Amino acid sequence: MAAPAIAITDPDDKRVAPFRAIREKDLVGRQGLFIAEGTVVLRVLAEADAARFEADRILVLENRLAGIAGILESYPEDVPVFTCNAAVMNAIAGFDMHRGVLALGRIAGRPMAEELIAALPEDALVVVCIGLSNHDNAGAIFRNATALGADAVLLDETSCDPLYRKALRVSVGSVLKMPWTRNGKGPEILSALARAGFDVVALSPAGGEAVHHLVPGRRVALVLGTEGEGLPVDIMEAFRTVRIPQAPGLDSLNVGNAAAIALYQLALAKGRIG
Amino acid sequence: MAAPAIAITDPDDKRVAPFRAIREKDLVGRQGLFIAEGTVVLRVLAEADAARFEADRILVLENRLAGIAGILESYPEDVPVFTCNAAVMNAIAGFDMHRGVLALGRIAGRPMAEELIAALPEDALVVVCIGLSNHDNAGAIFRNATALGADAVLLDETSCDPLYRKALRVSVGSVLKMPWTRNGKGPEILSALARAGFDVVALSPAGGEAVHHLVPGRRVALVLGTEGEGLPVDIMEAFRTVRIPQAPGLDSLNVGNAAAIALYQLALAKGRIG
Repeated sequence: MAAPAIAITDPDDKRVAPFRAIREKDLVGRQGLFIAEGTVVLRVLAEADAARFEADRILVLENRLAGIAGILESYPEDVPVFTCNAAVMNAIAGFDMHRGVLALGRIAGRPMAEELIAALPEDALVVVCIGLSNHDNAGAIFRNATALGADAVLLDETSCDPLYRKALRVSVGSVLKMPWTRNGKGPEILSALARAGFDVVALSPAGGEAVHHLVPGRRVALVLGTEGEGLPVDIMEAFRTVRIPQAPGLDSLNVGNAAAIALYQLALAKGRIG
Repeated sequence: MAAPAIAITDPDDKRVAPFRAIREKDLVGRQGLFIAEGTVVLRVLAEADAARFEADRILVLENRLAGIAGILESYPEDVPVFTCNAAVMNAIAGFDMHRGVLALGRIAGRPMAEELIAALPEDALVVVCIGLSNHDNAGAIFRNATALGADAVLLDETSCDPLYRKALRVSVGSVLKMPWTRNGKGPEILSALARAGFDVVALSPAGGEAVHHLVPGRRVALVLGTEGEGLPVDIMEAFRTVRIPQAPGLDSLNVGNAAAIALYQLALAKGRIG
């Protein structure tokens, strides 16, 4: 049960300082902290594995308090809940940036890619992102991976942070549920997966094989590249490549939607959904 | 070949007034006009069917002019091209809202749903949106429908406008290529499609049949509902329903990604892609 809400009347109150100017993502990202926005993500954060993510404090518009009482009850009492009116909230977080419900989360533990790979089940489907740059796409990929039953997402060190406010919101909180890492270089992650018995499959509009012709093994890693540019040539040459068949001469799918289709097809072929 | 660019130094210059405050979408939407943003959409607008969409005028940052000279050349000479520096552009269109390249487009013709249905090929795959409310999803659905070879998108009168700046950008301009309508009530559109020999298939997480078990006929209409709420009960009861199989107990897919998967599966089953 969370503690009773504490009223905040001064936007400069130090207790809500971490919610200041949440548009400036780096302020938060650098310190192992993140912003959870909206009731959906607030609910997921309450249920997150405490070894990975913890809530630090919560800030809620006063007229939203009653409606989310049930979610707040699921937080421990040492997580303070602050509340304020709309004018103070806008002064703290920036107009229209908060959805009336904000939590500050803390990363409690960050596994390395090798550790995460070592913990994967014998039958496994994972997503690898190399140079993914767009937070909306990161959020969409986590949501798709979760809905289609993937076991983990491995982002290379150059990919964007899925804990960034917008990515977390687009993921409907699945970034706090799905096992994932964001470290290491792309080729090293793929080599580690290959050593662990994964079929590494690179997705590209130029892929050699239509994804529905692939007969996946017990362990499959689907590799996604940078928006626009796609995967580097060395990775395309080193691993099996697949494509989503498309109407000729037309623009290719966005990476998030391409991931949805490829994961669906692989999960279906592996008998994980159906 | 477009006319030589005309320099604009005053943000209040009447010739660029339609680009003022493009964040205020209704200003433009009401008059049969729309804003095309960025080089990708500018290129598609140049190639659009003049019976459907025409360019009215173009506004380009002076430092972008050389880079898009090839695209500007493909516009007729009676489409004026204006150019200005970044300070003037920001004062006109709003900071960071323009990507340095804006065009004002005009709707030249709007077919009714019945007309569009009458013009569809014997073998057809169409998407119907009922109460779609989010511009990002509208754009994604058009992009997916185009990439996966659908013939048309029919939006009901309550769905959002795919010509809104953000939707058009997310669609990578495919809203200007794909045949579509946005009029009529959902049940009337579906009845008209059924009369025209379409298998009407409603997509929902609660759908009766997994989409990969569907054996599609020659003419198929995939029906998508409102974000969150989904399709109304009367439509779910009146038509065949399909679902995308998902991992149990998890959040459902976003409508744009669900559309990608369902269209992929239907296009594959119909032999349209592969």
